[in-house]
Amino acid sequence: MDDAKDSLLKRIFERAKFVQSLGIELIAFGDGWCETRVAVTPALEQQHGYVHAGVLMTLADHTCGGAAATMVPEGQDVITVENKVSFLRPGIGAMVYCRGEVLRAGKRLIFTEGAVTVERDGERVIVAKASSTLAVIS
Amino acid sequence: MDDAKDSLLKRIFERAKFVQSLGIELIAFGDGWCETRVAVTPALEQQHGYVHAGVLMTLADHTCGGAAATMVPEGQDVITVENKVSFLRPGIGAMVYCRGEVLRAGKRLIFTEGAVTVERDGERVIVAKASSTLAVIS
Amino acid sequence: MDDAKDSLLKRIFERAKFVQSLGIELIAFGDGWCETRVAVTPALEQQHGYVHAGVLMTLADHTCGGAAATMVPEGQDVITVENKVSFLRPGIGAMVYCRGEVLRAGKRLIFTEGAVTVERDGERVIVAKASSTLAVIS
Amino acid sequence: MDDAKDSLLKRIFERAKFVQSLGIELIAFGDGWCETRVAVTPALEQQHGYVHAGVLMTLADHTCGGAAATMVPEGQDVITVENKVSFLRPGIGAMVYCRGEVLRAGKRLIFTEGAVTVERDGERVIVAKASSTLAVIS
Repeated sequence: MDDAKDSLLKRIFERAKFVQSLGIELIAFGDGWCETRVAVTPALEQQHGYVHAGVLMTLADHTCGGAAATMVPEGQDVITVENKVSFLRPGIGAMVYCRGEVLRAGKRLIFTEGAVTVERDGERVIVAKASSTLAVIS
Repeated sequence: MDDAKDSLLKRIFERAKFVQSLGIELIAFGDGWCETRVAVTPALEQQHGYVHAGVLMTLADHTCGGAAATMVPEGQDVITVENKVSFLRPGIGAMVYCRGEVLRAGKRLIFTEGAVTVERDGERVIVAKASSTLAVIS
Repeated sequence: MDDAKDSLLKRIFERAKFVQSLGIELIAFGDGWCETRVAVTPALEQQHGYVHAGVLMTLADHTCGGAAATMVPEGQDVITVENKVSFLRPGIGAMVYCRGEVLRAGKRLIFTEGAVTVERDGERVIVAKASSTLAVIS
Repeated sequence: MDDAKDSLLKRIFERAKFVQSLGIELIAFGDGWCETRVAVTPALEQQHGYVHAGVLMTLADHTCGGAAATMVPEGQDVITVENKVSFLRPGIGAMVYCRGEVLRAGKRLIFTEGAVTVERDGERVIVAKASSTLAVIS
């Protein structure tokens, strides 16, 4: 992972005000993958007290974007084309994690997927799975 | 639209803290549809200065949920099963609107779609389109 | 609709052997839309006697592709990036129809959606809804 | 894997005429997974000579359905709610394989995903990835 990619990834997370306002943190990344987390606060909940689907989608979208960004040449960036998220279980837990992975990186399009997990009783449980396509932009 | 549905819709929006913290407002609703809006603030932006995909997904998810909730019997509620959002154009505009509509309401599953629009030069332009399935819960 | 587009559309349907082998017919098309149909035969059914989801997906995919192809400059073509299909009702009927429409045509990507309908008791009923992204290729 | 599941899986493949007419074969299955394949013939191609997206979607849909069917109690069955397929590479190869896996099996809904691969130069290459939700029916 060269310096250019390192700074692109940091910029993607630091300059995205919405990501900052939710408290989403970049944990780690490498060629074709990215890991993040967010501490659950009441402000992130929906009407039943679970983490709002929109938070899980935001986390998945930005983390898949981070994974995709590790695969583009210097001077290029990525933007989401579409994202589908399946909600496997209610989002219950103090900390939500996401790992995004690149399935296929083309010159113009990058296909990714993301697994959103929480910790329950000392084990990681998957609560959502995302499938997202991104476009490479200059 | 009877009182029970009226109060369910209001509860879905008022009690969802994440929706409140983003400033999403319920504008109107009827049998099988729901309309919302959110005023864009810097806290909702991503790294290029557009509205973050996560905001558009949250707005679409909650509005589709609102539309679905207009179709369930009293005492029942809805929860998102999956949601796919396509990003047709960059989210640029001072106010973002969403209209969610029910395509088909079954006893156990409700299929919806949502159009996310912004106002540009006095015209409504579609920036995202969502396709979401919800489950009916007690 | 100029001659180049007319011949592109016809080629897309005539040269696709899988589409021919299913009996899918091009009915009509114009700028940004395309309509098709397929007569249901036992060979298109699944184990419960309904039209197989794969038939509905094939019909939706090819019709959305047809709609997208009406929007590209001469000498260019389209290829499916991803396609999501929601199955609203069982596919029951003697003839299945699809109308594909372009939501947004960019230089590199075209966003489409498709409604799959059947005729029941003299009325058109929607049985599936597709949301598909296509890439423009040379 | 008890006899009831064994016969459910075989029935799902043998009685689905569309699956039979395409030549899709059930290779193997176990709790939460299912593997299939289809030999590519000219009748399965699209206009550029690749395997048609509809074939890949049909294969993915039926294989995800097979994986889901391994998780339901005796006397129950599954039906597709929605399916999204991303096309990572052109479908080129003499034999197409699919492995479907269950991500989460609830009482009413089963979430699955499927990887579609081909053999090229002695290696398996992924050409499509599916994410599909199924409903449990009696």
